[in-house]
Amino acid sequence: MLPALQQRRRRIQLLIIKQGLPDDKIADVLNEAERQNIPVQRLAKSEIDAMAFGKTHGGILALCTPKPPAAFDEIIDSLKSAASPPLLLLLEGVEDSQNLGYTLRSAEALGVQAILLKKHLWDFDEVAVSRASSGAYERLPVVKIERAGEELEKLRRHDLRIWGCIANAKRTCYEVDLTGPTLLAIGGEKRGLSAAVRVQCDGFMRIPMREKATSLSLSHAACILLAEAMRQRLGQFKDS
Amino acid sequence: MLPALQQRRRRIQLLIIKQGLPDDKIADVLNEAERQNIPVQRLAKSEIDAMAFGKTHGGILALCTPKPPAAFDEIIDSLKSAASPPLLLLLEGVEDSQNLGYTLRSAEALGVQAILLKKHLWDFDEVAVSRASSGAYERLPVVKIERAGEELEKLRRHDLRIWGCIANAKRTCYEVDLTGPTLLAIGGEKRGLSAAVRVQCDGFMRIPMREKATSLSLSHAACILLAEAMRQRLGQFKDS
Repeated sequence: MLPALQQRRRRIQLLIIKQGLPDDKIADVLNEAERQNIPVQRLAKSEIDAMAFGKTHGGILALCTPKPPAAFDEIIDSLKSAASPPLLLLLEGVEDSQNLGYTLRSAEALGVQAILLKKHLWDFDEVAVSRASSGAYERLPVVKIERAGEELEKLRRHDLRIWGCIANAKRTCYEVDLTGPTLLAIGGEKRGLSAAVRVQCDGFMRIPMREKATSLSLSHAACILLAEAMRQRLGQFKDS
Repeated sequence: MLPALQQRRRRIQLLIIKQGLPDDKIADVLNEAERQNIPVQRLAKSEIDAMAFGKTHGGILALCTPKPPAAFDEIIDSLKSAASPPLLLLLEGVEDSQNLGYTLRSAEALGVQAILLKKHLWDFDEVAVSRASSGAYERLPVVKIERAGEELEKLRRHDLRIWGCIANAKRTCYEVDLTGPTLLAIGGEKRGLSAAVRVQCDGFMRIPMREKATSLSLSHAACILLAEAMRQRLGQFKDS
C-alpha cells in the first residue's frame, strides 16, 4: 500500500483499515495518508474480507483509481536524464498476472528503468500484478505498446541496442555486451518474439541450457537476462 | 502427460481422452499407453471438463496414483554415477505450487540432478506443480526432507559444497566457484534460510541488486543462481 500512496499515480479516495491493526505497525501508511488528506476508515475484518480481492490483503484496502498507464514519451524523456546506461525490458505474450508481477519486482531490483508490454488480447488483473510485484508495479513505468515498430525505432534513434532472446540464437547472453543502453526483448513461451519485434532487433541471444531442455518460462528468462546485465554492469567477472 | 507415462513413477489405471482429439496429434501418448497396456477411454469435452483440475488440461487426463516421493538414498546413489559434477538445489519455505513448478522446470533445463524440498506446513497442489513444470516434476527426483541436518551432512561427506543464498553475504554468486559438486540452498522470502540449513553451509553468497532493492522471489533467485552455475560450467566468461 505504501508504494501506491507515495507514488501518487493513483487517486486514492479512501483508506480502509482493519479494526485492531495497531497504529504503530502501519505508521508509514497513516502518516502518508494524513499528509495527503486521505480519509481513513476502520472496519471489521469480515467486512474487509468481503471487499478485498483474495485473502492476502494485510488488513489495508484503498478505494482508488487504476494506475494510469505510462506514456511512451515519458520513457524517452527518462532516457535523457538516466544516470547510468538505460536498461529497458520488452515483454510480449505475457499470460499470467502473478508472473508479470514477479517479473516487475525482479526488473526493478535488477536495475530496469521501464517496461514495455506489447499489447495482446489478455487483460491482466491489476490487483494480482501489483501484489506479486511488491510495489514495483506502482513505482516502475509500464507502457503498453500496440505494434512495437514505431516505438522500437524511436528507442534505437536514442542509441538503445535492442537484443531479442530466441532459442536458436548463435550467441549466448554471456557473449553479448549489455553494458551500454540496452533493451531486452523477450517473447512468450508459445509464440516467442513476433516478427514485428524481431525486425527491430540489433541482434539475438539465447540462455544456455542443457541439451534437449524445454524452454524456460518467460518470467525466468527475463530475470536471468536482467541478472546478466547487472553482472556485466557491475564488472563482476569471476576469475577462472 | 507423456513424461508421466514415460517415467513410470505413477501407476496409471486409465487414460481419458477428449472425443474429437485426432489420434495423430497425440500419437506419442497413445503409443506409450499401448506399450504399457493402459486402457484408453474417449469422453465428451463436458465430462472431461467436469473431472479435470482447472481448464488447461489439453484434453487428456489420467487416473493415477500420486508420484511417490524420491528417497534420499536415490540421490546419494545418483551422485556416484553422475557424468558431470552434480548440481543440487535445496528449497526452503516454498509457498506457491505454480512457482515451485516453474522452478523445477528451470532447474531441469539448467542442469540440476535433484531437488531437496525442506518440509513445512504447506502441502502443495501436485497437479499445479506438475503442470507448471512442463513435465520436469515427473522427471526430476524431488526429495522432501525433515530437518536438513543429517541429509546435508551426508551430502558434504560426498564432497558437495553447500552454498547458502542470503541477502547480506559478502561474496556475490559471481565470486564463488560453482563448477564443482554443488548444492545451492535458497530460502523463502519471509524467513530466508533456517539456522538448521545455515550451519551446514560451506559459505554464503548473494545476488547483486541495485541499492535499496526489495528481495527477489524465491523462484527468481533460484533460476538466476542456476543460470550462473550453468554459465561457469560452460566456461562462458564474457571478454570485458
